[in-house]
Amino acid sequence: MPYIPLEEHLPGITGLLEYRKDSAEPIRELTQILLRGPSALTEGERELIATIVSSRNQCRFCTAAHTAAANILLGENDTSEKIKQDISTAPVSNKMRALLTIAAQVQESGKSVTATSIQKAKDEGATDLEIHDTVLIAALFCLYNRYVDGLATATPNSADFYTHLGNRLKQNGYNRLPQGYDHLKSQSVE
Amino acid sequence: MPYIPLEEHLPGITGLLEYRKDSAEPIRELTQILLRGPSALTEGERELIATIVSSRNQCRFCTAAHTAAANILLGENDTSEKIKQDISTAPVSNKMRALLTIAAQVQESGKSVTATSIQKAKDEGATDLEIHDTVLIAALFCLYNRYVDGLATATPNSADFYTHLGNRLKQNGYNRLPQGYDHLKSQSVE
Repeated sequence: MPYIPLEEHLPGITGLLEYRKDSAEPIRELTQILLRGPSALTEGERELIATIVSSRNQCRFCTAAHTAAANILLGENDTSEKIKQDISTAPVSNKMRALLTIAAQVQESGKSVTATSIQKAKDEGATDLEIHDTVLIAALFCLYNRYVDGLATATPNSADFYTHLGNRLKQNGYNRLPQGYDHLKSQSVE
Repeated sequence: MPYIPLEEHLPGITGLLEYRKDSAEPIRELTQILLRGPSALTEGERELIATIVSSRNQCRFCTAAHTAAANILLGENDTSEKIKQDISTAPVSNKMRALLTIAAQVQESGKSVTATSIQKAKDEGATDLEIHDTVLIAALFCLYNRYVDGLATATPNSADFYTHLGNRLKQNGYNRLPQGYDHLKSQSVE
């Protein structure tokens, strides 16, 4: 049971974004800019950053949602599983490995990010902007994970739920669905 | 030395918000809504939530900035110091004590927030919206603290710097300064 009254058919973050719509707007906008805006990192790679942070924060809802989004965007389910198990041996580029390592440090604490891990990312070709965005995406998911679990929102068990949600995140990104598309919203959460 | 090139005269969060202005806008807007928008919690009380989270994340820049803002808004320096030492004995209302306890749990993890601490806040008169906002403000400062420290931004030592910044946060809130007010910006960071 969530700690505050949320619509039952809207689990996880979805009910929170309906509960207070004015604060939801900049949260959606920030996420859209960082995860779907122009970037040298692919959308799938950025979803992997969301996934590794949510996984290490043990946020079941966010981990399942962003794993699904990453899998759909990457076209395979292997990479997301392997980064959650061990970044050092996962089948990603060395640049991405270095950025995921930074994201995992951010999950612990801002102070956990080391000059060594930043230098490694630069040596592997990461730009300053990619490093900036990795830190900010990781920090944003530390917000999301705390918001979702701190208010004890519901976590569906059905894999289908997350596949629907992942498809919506691929097709519509993080923007609010336009009015008249409420059937899509309810489809994705049933 | 910050891990990415930031303007030297803009330490802490200030340089990051200039570095990527498109992502800065929704971060500013979310903070303005939560810390300065309509609320049953005073602006000073909301700055105390920012302060306790930043302090427990050991983010020196954010702790000093929001301590200064809280002190200016509350008109005294005692409460902010005492909540950082021990929430249970600090001179705040029982409702505020319960909300600060929830914020401190959010700082650890979303999963650390207990049904008992939520019930305590409700028993002390906190509304669902106040509980929601406390969790989201605490989560937002987990983002800020990681952003600021994860990129190793500069932390001024001068108390005057934070007094200037605290005054600006009281007078202008978290919105971007309008064009033509750059003299205010540079005043506050020198």
